[in-house]
Amino acid sequence: MVKKVGVAILGLGVVGGGTYQTLVEHHDFYLKTQRVDITVESVLDLNLERLKALGVPDECIAKSIEEVLANPNVDIVIETIGGIGVAKTFVTAALRDGKTVVTSNKELICKYSHELEKIAKHNRCGLYYEASCVGGVPIIRTLLDGVQANTITRMMGIVNGTTNYILTKMTYEGANYADVLKEAQKLGYAEANPTADVDGFDSMYKLSILSSMAFHTKIPYTKIFREGISKIDIKDIEYGKELGYTLKLLAIGKNEGKGIEVRVHPTLIPNSHPLASVNDSFNAVYLTGDAVDDIMLYGRGAGALPTASAVVSDVIYAATHSEIKYSTFKNNATADSSVKFISDFTSAYYIRLSVADKAGVLAKISGIFAKCGMSIVEIAQKGKSEVIANGESRVPLVVITHKTSENKVKSAVAKINATDIADVEAVIRVEE
Amino acid sequence: MVKKVGVAILGLGVVGGGTYQTLVEHHDFYLKTQRVDITVESVLDLNLERLKALGVPDECIAKSIEEVLANPNVDIVIETIGGIGVAKTFVTAALRDGKTVVTSNKELICKYSHELEKIAKHNRCGLYYEASCVGGVPIIRTLLDGVQANTITRMMGIVNGTTNYILTKMTYEGANYADVLKEAQKLGYAEANPTADVDGFDSMYKLSILSSMAFHTKIPYTKIFREGISKIDIKDIEYGKELGYTLKLLAIGKNEGKGIEVRVHPTLIPNSHPLASVNDSFNAVYLTGDAVDDIMLYGRGAGALPTASAVVSDVIYAATHSEIKYSTFKNNATADSSVKFISDFTSAYYIRLSVADKAGVLAKISGIFAKCGMSIVEIAQKGKSEVIANGESRVPLVVITHKTSENKVKSAVAKINATDIADVEAVIRVEE
Repeated sequence: MVKKVGVAILGLGVVGGGTYQTLVEHHDFYLKTQRVDITVESVLDLNLERLKALGVPDECIAKSIEEVLANPNVDIVIETIGGIGVAKTFVTAALRDGKTVVTSNKELICKYSHELEKIAKHNRCGLYYEASCVGGVPIIRTLLDGVQANTITRMMGIVNGTTNYILTKMTYEGANYADVLKEAQKLGYAEANPTADVDGFDSMYKLSILSSMAFHTKIPYTKIFREGISKIDIKDIEYGKELGYTLKLLAIGKNEGKGIEVRVHPTLIPNSHPLASVNDSFNAVYLTGDAVDDIMLYGRGAGALPTASAVVSDVIYAATHSEIKYSTFKNNATADSSVKFISDFTSAYYIRLSVADKAGVLAKISGIFAKCGMSIVEIAQKGKSEVIANGESRVPLVVITHKTSENKVKSAVAKINATDIADVEAVIRVEE
Repeated sequence: MVKKVGVAILGLGVVGGGTYQTLVEHHDFYLKTQRVDITVESVLDLNLERLKALGVPDECIAKSIEEVLANPNVDIVIETIGGIGVAKTFVTAALRDGKTVVTSNKELICKYSHELEKIAKHNRCGLYYEASCVGGVPIIRTLLDGVQANTITRMMGIVNGTTNYILTKMTYEGANYADVLKEAQKLGYAEANPTADVDGFDSMYKLSILSSMAFHTKIPYTKIFREGISKIDIKDIEYGKELGYTLKLLAIGKNEGKGIEVRVHPTLIPNSHPLASVNDSFNAVYLTGDAVDDIMLYGRGAGALPTASAVVSDVIYAATHSEIKYSTFKNNATADSSVKFISDFTSAYYIRLSVADKAGVLAKISGIFAKCGMSIVEIAQKGKSEVIANGESRVPLVVITHKTSENKVKSAVAKINATDIADVEAVIRVEE
């Protein structure tokens, strides 16, 4: 009745350490509630101090991946190293050996799931990666087994905790980007080199994985439009607030019939939208399906124990289900050629301009928008007139457009910047 | 590679009709994305007009449950009749026949899962009931396969759409209970006899099912404290707002080490709590696990298509997984005798009194609370003094307590009501 399962953990940093701790502390609980006897049989990490601090028994400490894989008691290999160097080599070796792999590695899955799933399938073992996206939130299980009855038309997610922490601080404390980033780095919420988070790479990898599952077709990350938060001016958060919007870095996937659009960028959403109140390092994914309508999953997107919750959930799932769900989309590195991707996507826009403080300017600006085929919901002068370098008086002007296309906006921006009466200082997409 | 699955649907009302429509419209989609060929082989409903309107082919219409079960093409029986009369008889017969059953029937599962699971187990078939709780939100799948690595310590849910609609209207439009109920009945959001919803029975059934799964032990509905919303005074919603709280009907389960407490009652929660912004007929369940920390699932708790999403999700799950997860708790109608239930639960409280408008009253009231061992966070006079029947001047007083016990509150309320200077007019529990 009880199933015995031996696991190995590769890399015992934050997530791997949390996973070790969770498995050890819950051993009897899983035995009782899941009827699985899960034991950690082998661990691999260069940092022996770390293993000592975790209390790993000496006999479990392996010296090489070969030693781990040679251990006949190891059924499942957990990879929590990260990156696509040694992690890829080890995962490939484990799958070739017929071991089921559970990983928290978003970059690896985003870039190589096609290759790794092929090996897993060939060797009849599983490849699970719930922990690669949105920490402890069971979004992958939900896509596979919870909303699989639906055609998913839209997905909007706050999938990066660091940027959400920064934007929350900017929004509620009025602090500017550089200061909040510094503070986040001091607190360990942001890396010394924050690029992966603040420039949207992390969100992009996760969107590639989640949208591939939601839309049942491979969405290579190269198809994803990406814009980070490092150029966000506190002014735009303030003006957004005044207009009833909250600024979030969203990962957006849409498949509404005309093709697929995938993008990561700062986005203004109405304050009443459930995503608008997802604050600090919390994450959430908001999905729309043709039967279920809107649903949202909310929780901690990172951290040792929340991510361990997802890793161990996969281990238990692998141990208690014999069917392995491989991707149903073609296992290619590149997109299915029959799928159309929309790069000239449609959105409403928030545009902030600095305009000359004189008569006739508003008419001229409105005229340019109209000529470009854009219609305007709201136009408002913000703040006071300021004298700029050439002695001219300038005033901030905020425009909210109806839904229009990215290309039309680009063309209007170029036309406005070519005049001597106005400059576009910020363009932010708006979603409902 | 493709698995053929024939289903029967018993009862084609709102949910059954939505299920039929979802299965028919998505046939090719499930074939492609799930590799299952699901066909509706048989339907049973007394109302033939309904079947015609749905476009059910004549050859699929059965005249009796015997005819449905005799059909060799039927692998899975979907029960969307509701109640515990004929639905129980039909589900029992189907399971005895070795057919896997998928049901949306919360009352049936709450009251008879012990009996039905025994039959299912004996006949090696499945019993699935995702649709019985919180419509399209995959909360049962999440408990079974998404957060199963956690010891769940707390669950708080808005699991009834009708009462949430009523409370939302009262909160944001200032309308009183009776008027909003009437409007909800007119719109079809509330039944002509609204008791099951407004008195908390529906929430109680769902809490029994969900807390049994979360805490891995049978929680009979008879152990659940239940209080509805029909006595909610708009005043308490207003005063709550002024204090930073939102009123919701919550289904609460806690298992924090000292025993299990389960209760359904109107609750004030801080405006910043994610559940506070779950409005209208939306539902949500907020869970706390020892690894994952807080997570929330949000979506439509009712309606034809959202509930069909859950029904069909179970059908696909049953068709694509050979392992059947029966409850791990003992399959008894009653609770495991080793489990301790806490009836004298701990909570903070909002207490509204009508007190005599004269010197010394506040001291006397405070003295009674102190004598009962309760400590007070906040005490505030609200509104103006009013003359009551006996010519006395009375003024509303609102008290927020620190965490205390239900029994202490009862005793303080009795003592206050025994004085001639104050009456307790409302007692509402407060959760963080």
